[in-house]
Amino acid sequence: MSNAEDSPHLPIEDFRKYGYQLVDWLADYFSNIDEERILPDIAPGDIRAMLPETAPDQAESMDDILADLDRIVMPGMAHWQHPGWFAFFPSGVSPVSVLGEFVAAGLATQGMMWSTAPSPTEIENTVLDWLVDLLGLPPAWRIDTGPGGGVLQMSASDSTHLSLAIARHHAVEAGYATDSLVAYCSEQAHSSIEKGARIAGFRHIRSIQVDESFALDVDALKEQVDLDLAAGLKPTWICSAVGTTSTTAMDPIRQIADIAQSIGMWHHADAAYAGSAMICPEFRHLQDGVELVDSYTFNPHKWLLTNFDCSVFWAADRSKLTDALSIQPAYLKNEASGNPAAIDYRDWHVPLGRRFRALKLWFVLRSYGAEKLREFVRSHVVWAEDLENRLAGDERFEIIAPRPLALVCFRHVGGNDVTKSLAEQINASGTAYVTPSLINETQFIRVSIGSTWTEQRHVDALWELIDLNGVPS
Amino acid sequence: MSNAEDSPHLPIEDFRKYGYQLVDWLADYFSNIDEERILPDIAPGDIRAMLPETAPDQAESMDDILADLDRIVMPGMAHWQHPGWFAFFPSGVSPVSVLGEFVAAGLATQGMMWSTAPSPTEIENTVLDWLVDLLGLPPAWRIDTGPGGGVLQMSASDSTHLSLAIARHHAVEAGYATDSLVAYCSEQAHSSIEKGARIAGFRHIRSIQVDESFALDVDALKEQVDLDLAAGLKPTWICSAVGTTSTTAMDPIRQIADIAQSIGMWHHADAAYAGSAMICPEFRHLQDGVELVDSYTFNPHKWLLTNFDCSVFWAADRSKLTDALSIQPAYLKNEASGNPAAIDYRDWHVPLGRRFRALKLWFVLRSYGAEKLREFVRSHVVWAEDLENRLAGDERFEIIAPRPLALVCFRHVGGNDVTKSLAEQINASGTAYVTPSLINETQFIRVSIGSTWTEQRHVDALWELIDLNGVPS
Repeated sequence: MSNAEDSPHLPIEDFRKYGYQLVDWLADYFSNIDEERILPDIAPGDIRAMLPETAPDQAESMDDILADLDRIVMPGMAHWQHPGWFAFFPSGVSPVSVLGEFVAAGLATQGMMWSTAPSPTEIENTVLDWLVDLLGLPPAWRIDTGPGGGVLQMSASDSTHLSLAIARHHAVEAGYATDSLVAYCSEQAHSSIEKGARIAGFRHIRSIQVDESFALDVDALKEQVDLDLAAGLKPTWICSAVGTTSTTAMDPIRQIADIAQSIGMWHHADAAYAGSAMICPEFRHLQDGVELVDSYTFNPHKWLLTNFDCSVFWAADRSKLTDALSIQPAYLKNEASGNPAAIDYRDWHVPLGRRFRALKLWFVLRSYGAEKLREFVRSHVVWAEDLENRLAGDERFEIIAPRPLALVCFRHVGGNDVTKSLAEQINASGTAYVTPSLINETQFIRVSIGSTWTEQRHVDALWELIDLNGVPS
Repeated sequence: MSNAEDSPHLPIEDFRKYGYQLVDWLADYFSNIDEERILPDIAPGDIRAMLPETAPDQAESMDDILADLDRIVMPGMAHWQHPGWFAFFPSGVSPVSVLGEFVAAGLATQGMMWSTAPSPTEIENTVLDWLVDLLGLPPAWRIDTGPGGGVLQMSASDSTHLSLAIARHHAVEAGYATDSLVAYCSEQAHSSIEKGARIAGFRHIRSIQVDESFALDVDALKEQVDLDLAAGLKPTWICSAVGTTSTTAMDPIRQIADIAQSIGMWHHADAAYAGSAMICPEFRHLQDGVELVDSYTFNPHKWLLTNFDCSVFWAADRSKLTDALSIQPAYLKNEASGNPAAIDYRDWHVPLGRRFRALKLWFVLRSYGAEKLREFVRSHVVWAEDLENRLAGDERFEIIAPRPLALVCFRHVGGNDVTKSLAEQINASGTAYVTPSLINETQFIRVSIGSTWTEQRHVDALWELIDLNGVPS
């Protein structure tokens, strides 16, 4: 590249200078994030009020722009990376994944086809094959040995939507009217299921009741399916949650698969959060029967130290994707190849263009290694168990749902208002953040342990906050 | 964060060290990209053959991992950032946008709601409002002054799919059967239209013939719409291409809007590539009538120096999005706010989670300033015009389509085989890369000028290659 004086771009020496500066800025952020207030003290519009109404006509200096990270951006941040972040599910990140994202951004390659991005394509299908083994998933999901295969998506919502659209496509190809198709999930399934089904054009979306563990009630499913069949509808798609969002309840995949297979429904497993735990063999019983599903999604960007977006989607039969999605215009034609590594990923999902998303995942899997990743996940489960024991051993509190992994769901026995107020007091501390939630009219508190920088001491500090603010029963 | 010895993460001082190293690596890449062969000399599977079959169990050193950028990644790269890249459309990037992406990756915030990411949300809607003005779009598309609003998407394919799904949703709500809905585009529209319509569940997708400029033929559209109405179908969605992919033909938005409005079709404008040019007032006549469409998409990640993914989607009436997509589960409930800056972007598209994608765009718009961005785009148009003149002035070559912006489409008068062979010879040089394409059985060559590092001299060098390899007519 030219460093010509008339180049409109940042001079390369300035790129180095500001690049180093931002490396330091992020290093300091990671180091001092403990000291930030988790949630900002601002009102809607406060950030916008600091910004001009129109874009600048003339160039601004990088010094001014970077200064605005501290002046404008930080005062309006909810610090997902704070070690006291126990809300929602973790937003995974690691120093290594950030470096991978940086390189991928600079290469700015477009991975729509093998030919437009050979190494990004082959690294992607390689690391997704690695993950098949790491998670103990069916070997037939590896593209090098089976009919299946994986693709990186943006989010589990995208993956879920995709499986719905694929299932709908094949049902309609088989002669069913779109408006007769039915999608099923438990009433505890993630909102992305209903939203995805709606976007994919399903007119009938059934929320199936759950059992006392908040897992899908198979008898209720069977009953609803029979009703729908009797009404001339076409059961088309069902989701097994491998960990619901609300309480990480585990749907009975094997029993659901019985029903799905007997009537030819597409069976999707949503392991967005819990999938990462499957790198530890001792948790795999939670997804017993997983070899029977048609598709599976999990998010390394939740609990596997790889920054968003990085959601893995596997299809047990990749031809179901490409049959539905492949469109071959003249300007995209390239040499065909029988080699499964030479995938044209544009035929595997909604978007055409795609970043080199696999790079950061490759960095993470290699720089940690499987054993350290297992330890990372196990440490959170141990801390969660410990917190659960403390709560269960205190008569003021009550565990409201089974804890298969690192999400603890509890309430104050004093009732909904007391529980809600407890959550508010914890969150007002600025040092811990939990999610107040509701299940069957019962207010409870979700404590999700899994942020990158969280240590035992932060969970201890959370317990102290709970203990301090939990009024006597 | 702790730098405890038992931390599984990269020590913060190593993050600095390897961060600097990668800043230098990218700086060198940007500086020396001229010297790379544009396309790699490899076969499918070559990259994969260098990778182990399973993930490492133990941690690997960062030195080894980073060394593999040169050992494994680079030999399999198609260098989209090479200044001789004239294929497809450009994959926009700039040193500044890469820095923005880096910071966003480290913050690893989740922008599903205002409350989970206040400054990312407000910066996003602010810069998208800036772009409304910068591109001369209807002021009512600004969220601060009108019923419209913008949201960052991953790709134009996602934006197109979204508009189709929204249109379908509202048609079905109004009582039409899904299987009766019809989507329209020109036969020159991007493959993402057909793919998006298929994914959105449209059973009827009409490719309308084009006129001699390859723009949609409005009479043919009118005729097809009447046929469909007569057949009891429901015309639901139509796309106006503001620059087709093949030749950047411009569909007549105003005339199409007449038809769309008279029968209540959703009218989407796909300006994926050409939208960036609208920062220059002199090109806006190309999208005359744009104020009449229901949605509009363009990709700063193509021609506006912001690395993928960064696709803008505007809806003229944002309530059409949120009415179709809003789902409010208990664990996502937050304080309502009447402030339009306090958007919950999860209700604006398929995914729930989202990166702080606006940061890099904010960096780009400020660090270049509107005037430099205009000069950047104009320079490409001038070079394209110059190349076009050279081609038109040479009896061996023939321009096959109008050139509204910076895409030149030409053929060798010797016919398809000669033209194809010319493209192959250019691409075999390793210093320039063009796309051979086909329109109405005519082989032609697409030369798209717009890569970040391209200068006049690279276009001159391309002309020399064309001149050298273009056999006498």
